[in-house]
Amino acid sequence: MSSPLLLGAEVPDDPPAMARGQQTVAILGSGDFSRSLAVRLVACGVSVVVGSRCVKRIAPGLFPDAVELSSQEGAVVKAQRLVVLALFPEHYPSLLGIRAALAGKVLVDVSNAMELGSGVSSNAEQLAELFPESVVVKGFNVISAWTLQTGTQDGSRQVLLCSDSVEGKSEVAQLARLMGFHPVDSGDLRQSRVLETMPLRLFPSWRGPLLATFLLFLFFYAYGFLRDLLLPYLAHGRDGFHRLALALPNESLPNVALVALALVYLPGLLAAWLQLWRGTKYQRFPRWLDGWLLRRKQLGLLGFLCAALHAVYSLCLPLFLYGPNNWSISLYAVCISQVKAGVEEPWDESGVWRSDLYLSCGVLALGILSLLAITSLPTVGNVLTWREFTFVQSGLGYTALTLSVTHTLVFGWDFAFSPQAYEFYMPPSYVLAVAAPCAVLVCRCILLLPCTSTRLARIRRGWERLGKVSIPLALTVSFKQDKTSLDAGL
Amino acid sequence: MSSPLLLGAEVPDDPPAMARGQQTVAILGSGDFSRSLAVRLVACGVSVVVGSRCVKRIAPGLFPDAVELSSQEGAVVKAQRLVVLALFPEHYPSLLGIRAALAGKVLVDVSNAMELGSGVSSNAEQLAELFPESVVVKGFNVISAWTLQTGTQDGSRQVLLCSDSVEGKSEVAQLARLMGFHPVDSGDLRQSRVLETMPLRLFPSWRGPLLATFLLFLFFYAYGFLRDLLLPYLAHGRDGFHRLALALPNESLPNVALVALALVYLPGLLAAWLQLWRGTKYQRFPRWLDGWLLRRKQLGLLGFLCAALHAVYSLCLPLFLYGPNNWSISLYAVCISQVKAGVEEPWDESGVWRSDLYLSCGVLALGILSLLAITSLPTVGNVLTWREFTFVQSGLGYTALTLSVTHTLVFGWDFAFSPQAYEFYMPPSYVLAVAAPCAVLVCRCILLLPCTSTRLARIRRGWERLGKVSIPLALTVSFKQDKTSLDAGL
Amino acid sequence: MSSPLLLGAEVPDDPPAMARGQQTVAILGSGDFSRSLAVRLVACGVSVVVGSRCVKRIAPGLFPDAVELSSQEGAVVKAQRLVVLALFPEHYPSLLGIRAALAGKVLVDVSNAMELGSGVSSNAEQLAELFPESVVVKGFNVISAWTLQTGTQDGSRQVLLCSDSVEGKSEVAQLARLMGFHPVDSGDLRQSRVLETMPLRLFPSWRGPLLATFLLFLFFYAYGFLRDLLLPYLAHGRDGFHRLALALPNESLPNVALVALALVYLPGLLAAWLQLWRGTKYQRFPRWLDGWLLRRKQLGLLGFLCAALHAVYSLCLPLFLYGPNNWSISLYAVCISQVKAGVEEPWDESGVWRSDLYLSCGVLALGILSLLAITSLPTVGNVLTWREFTFVQSGLGYTALTLSVTHTLVFGWDFAFSPQAYEFYMPPSYVLAVAAPCAVLVCRCILLLPCTSTRLARIRRGWERLGKVSIPLALTVSFKQDKTSLDAGL
Repeated sequence: MSSPLLLGAEVPDDPPAMARGQQTVAILGSGDFSRSLAVRLVACGVSVVVGSRCVKRIAPGLFPDAVELSSQEGAVVKAQRLVVLALFPEHYPSLLGIRAALAGKVLVDVSNAMELGSGVSSNAEQLAELFPESVVVKGFNVISAWTLQTGTQDGSRQVLLCSDSVEGKSEVAQLARLMGFHPVDSGDLRQSRVLETMPLRLFPSWRGPLLATFLLFLFFYAYGFLRDLLLPYLAHGRDGFHRLALALPNESLPNVALVALALVYLPGLLAAWLQLWRGTKYQRFPRWLDGWLLRRKQLGLLGFLCAALHAVYSLCLPLFLYGPNNWSISLYAVCISQVKAGVEEPWDESGVWRSDLYLSCGVLALGILSLLAITSLPTVGNVLTWREFTFVQSGLGYTALTLSVTHTLVFGWDFAFSPQAYEFYMPPSYVLAVAAPCAVLVCRCILLLPCTSTRLARIRRGWERLGKVSIPLALTVSFKQDKTSLDAGL
Repeated sequence: MSSPLLLGAEVPDDPPAMARGQQTVAILGSGDFSRSLAVRLVACGVSVVVGSRCVKRIAPGLFPDAVELSSQEGAVVKAQRLVVLALFPEHYPSLLGIRAALAGKVLVDVSNAMELGSGVSSNAEQLAELFPESVVVKGFNVISAWTLQTGTQDGSRQVLLCSDSVEGKSEVAQLARLMGFHPVDSGDLRQSRVLETMPLRLFPSWRGPLLATFLLFLFFYAYGFLRDLLLPYLAHGRDGFHRLALALPNESLPNVALVALALVYLPGLLAAWLQLWRGTKYQRFPRWLDGWLLRRKQLGLLGFLCAALHAVYSLCLPLFLYGPNNWSISLYAVCISQVKAGVEEPWDESGVWRSDLYLSCGVLALGILSLLAITSLPTVGNVLTWREFTFVQSGLGYTALTLSVTHTLVFGWDFAFSPQAYEFYMPPSYVLAVAAPCAVLVCRCILLLPCTSTRLARIRRGWERLGKVSIPLALTVSFKQDKTSLDAGL
Repeated sequence: MSSPLLLGAEVPDDPPAMARGQQTVAILGSGDFSRSLAVRLVACGVSVVVGSRCVKRIAPGLFPDAVELSSQEGAVVKAQRLVVLALFPEHYPSLLGIRAALAGKVLVDVSNAMELGSGVSSNAEQLAELFPESVVVKGFNVISAWTLQTGTQDGSRQVLLCSDSVEGKSEVAQLARLMGFHPVDSGDLRQSRVLETMPLRLFPSWRGPLLATFLLFLFFYAYGFLRDLLLPYLAHGRDGFHRLALALPNESLPNVALVALALVYLPGLLAAWLQLWRGTKYQRFPRWLDGWLLRRKQLGLLGFLCAALHAVYSLCLPLFLYGPNNWSISLYAVCISQVKAGVEEPWDESGVWRSDLYLSCGVLALGILSLLAITSLPTVGNVLTWREFTFVQSGLGYTALTLSVTHTLVFGWDFAFSPQAYEFYMPPSYVLAVAAPCAVLVCRCILLLPCTSTRLARIRRGWERLGKVSIPLALTVSFKQDKTSLDAGL
């Protein structure tokens, strides 16, 4: 029979004093963070004392009634153990006056770094130097006043803690858990340098992929401008510059999407080839490859974004006719031209087939990509088994890639090989774009050949070229490695 | 080195009896909730006794075999502490017969209120009056039978508990945690009045925003009907009433979206101005402003919805041609009219530019808005740092607003200033709609001027006009306040 | 006052030794899973010893420095209690040599089954037979190496554990919690058969719905092919085969969507009718009905997918004109035909109304369906009360169904009743498709009649035909049952 312990029957026979609900926490400072923290703590049944240097200056009603206001020293004295410092780091020295009272208390430093890479020691470390007789715990700085007030609807918001004192850390951890947060041990106080700069980070994992996508777009846009607008204008004075706003972006976006998707699956293939070449899996990948493997999700999502924009842009094309006063005109132009041309047998079967086909491929590819985007949502991914995840990310992903390539090829087949497409010795942009995914697909197919696939499987099961039976691995590992090499990849 | 305590090494050296897996819970009543709870508890290794007044009436197989069926009294006697009442509140008195057996037990009341604002004391409070010798704990009423059976895939579903007994509450909390729920202390038994009405709530936070959006739509629809359909009909007998179904909604929706977006960013600006005017941040905002600040997310999502519908509607316009039998007709009409008109040089450059431009702006604005909508998903928001959140909600949000305004202005520029647009002295509806976002953007720009922005930053750092150095705040606070004033806003 | 116990003040007055951070865990095997686990444990402040048969073969830097490498026996000896086996199950016997050292330890089996339904005893059970003096705990096999390394952003990833030893299970559970996972007790070691095959599952709950949707599509596609392409070709040699790629799928998809939506709401109605007929709710539904009720969410999402694809396809239709070189042609063809036809008064009011109307209905239906799809995301659903959920899934769901039906009927009204639509005695496909949802809507309306609805409400409140006052149920139950019967249904 299974035990309630398992999910936390954490009631000691004799609950310690603080567990009986008599815990008192002091907060120094009376700003938003202080207020929000006080509100939350009171709601969780903890008694709170707010210490301020000039209590009378605090507007009435700023804090809930249950909160006691007092001088800084008074507050610290009332606190059993925990004293939260909601002050500017630069004001920490002003507390030296009450150093005696602070001795033996746990000082919780919630401050953030001013700027990235300030290099020197962190606020928390400086605080620890100032008050050697107190225990300093760094934490809560990644939690916003807002989150404190509203609480986390799914009680799964992480609070990173670090300290040199195990006991101090665990006491603060309890408080965090008490407030419905999920405390995570981030090691000793040195880690505070990382923790303090965390809130300053701005999408670190998106930097690279965003840059890559942007450069790709820039390249294809410039290429298209040169090939389709500038050169024709110089050569024949053909003026198509109005295409800069809509048509040209709409030609560049799908190319970006294609290359981005290729970049999602390339690193996985490189990793596989590397393992095949080395004949073992017990050497780490080069740093750049590891980094790339970790950025596939972002690359994939950006590729999906481009594809979606392309779709919407394309669907806008007919709207063009409804532009303020162009609808009739362009239409008219066409009719007249046709009448002049006096076409005889205007219906071309293959043309119809092609346009139908490439539209279908495009729609389906986008549909599958959106499924991939959905499964990359945290919660959705969480409920998938590794096999499901592999199926979605690898199986569906390659299907989407194949469809996109087909979409492109079917669209531009006879353009690609008509001589007048190379008037300026520049191939159409999609010819360049489609090269990368084609290469990826070919590599993938080679890996699927029995000779390579079996060898790769053996390597991933721990076999080495040396032929010795290697350190055995759980079968799960090989698969999980597989998932790893696919995880987070669209 | 850090301590396992941190994430819960909750095994006391001598685990209490109930923790050894011999815990027995009694459930009175044999309905769906009773059954689901029994199934879940058995799965978690707790032995369950279901007490019913006529056991023989229970269909065989209704409960899992591990569940023991017995009389109500028998069940209560077998239970160590916890007795879950899965009964109608109106049947609580029927338990007075076994009051002796219930004495000293923890009675868990899972019932809900019949209707909102019943005013009088809650079911749980009445229960507590009936059985003074028992401990009454309110809880689980926000959990559905369904959730009980299926469990929560991410084990993060909250269970709100309240009681006057700390011990009772903690025992029920263990049971909740044992079942994979996340217990939350909601205070003493008086809170049960709130808890019981909770399941009756129907999107309280969406009421206001929905009403506002609906009224806006109503206004713009009526305005458009009057200006574009009714008056022209009365004046010139022009019959355009078929536009009621598609064209008119499609004109109203973008206006609603524009105003809604403006309403998202207005309160933040008001708050800033208020702080500037007061010269301090230590006074609370008026209640209505607080409420408004808390509704920005909903307003933004509704605005996004309108914008998306507008996009789809617009993309449907060309489909109109494919209507059962209108395609050829309208087209033909156009051609003929053109032929009659015998236009000479029909191509107008600026027109093409404009239509391209406003389509691009529209697409991009919608794209950015959908990014904002995605980041407003709980899990996605959870993994963002405050700076990332601010960047997305404020930076991208204002970009989207600017793009939407451009989209509107470029679209309707020369209509706005052509005299025949004012035949009935009524400006085009989008002229009205675009006013609000323009005002917002202007205010925002003024706030960005050095003079105001530095002053505002100082105020948010705790500085006051009085000039005294105020109570210092952690730097984090000013930023987090910043986030607060942006959080949940699209 | 409420108690911190509630959310886990799990610090016993005298924390046990392992809780003081001196815990040492041994991992046997040096594969990816071993490495990832080691990395994670070290990060959480646990000291790790990796045991391998040939330590020197392990590439330097493969493991973090904090990890101690040693022989298998050495590692086991150093471990206090927990020994994780990251080996192939087939190598378990190779550990018999160090059976003495393993005695009294907790062996954590993380392996997966090779294939589904291997029938015989699980790896964990075989391990337990091999090492009777050790405690065997099954767990972590659903966690991938990837998840171990990156950790779960919301600390809510479940770890299923099973064992015959309560203590062993609870110790492993602590380790899991320590790493930020959410341990779940899955019973005794027999359950390991289920746990081991879990990672091999591939969307079990999606199988049925996917098959149903696929068959529906196949049927409608074949039907359309026969009716619109093959027979006309054979009869009149009309060649429309180019419609296979785009037009025909676009006609089949909405039909599939309609029927799928009908299948979502049908089981709920069947359940209600069954209860009415039986006159009681205390009999279980037949197995097939239960299964169907549990698959509604998937059916609904697939129906939504089809509807969305249909929308995109339809929006692509005008693009058809922009096909490589068909734009002008088809247009021209139309104009010419018109000119030849020499239509007199080409504008037909009703036609315009209809096309406007069915487009509006379609757009709105899709909009509502997407709202439903969003609320079926785990996190979004989690924050809804049962009443909100019911409102969304039932209220909005039926609205969407009604709109889709209207969309179809308005579209095809006069086709449906024109004789030439029945040339081959086959009704248009949408006539078949619309039948199911119409039936559902009618049944629903009948259920809403006072006579049936009141009776159903009484039955769901526990009333039985026998007339006896039945076992009372909490009012919540009737509603929650209601939600159950709607939950997960689009």
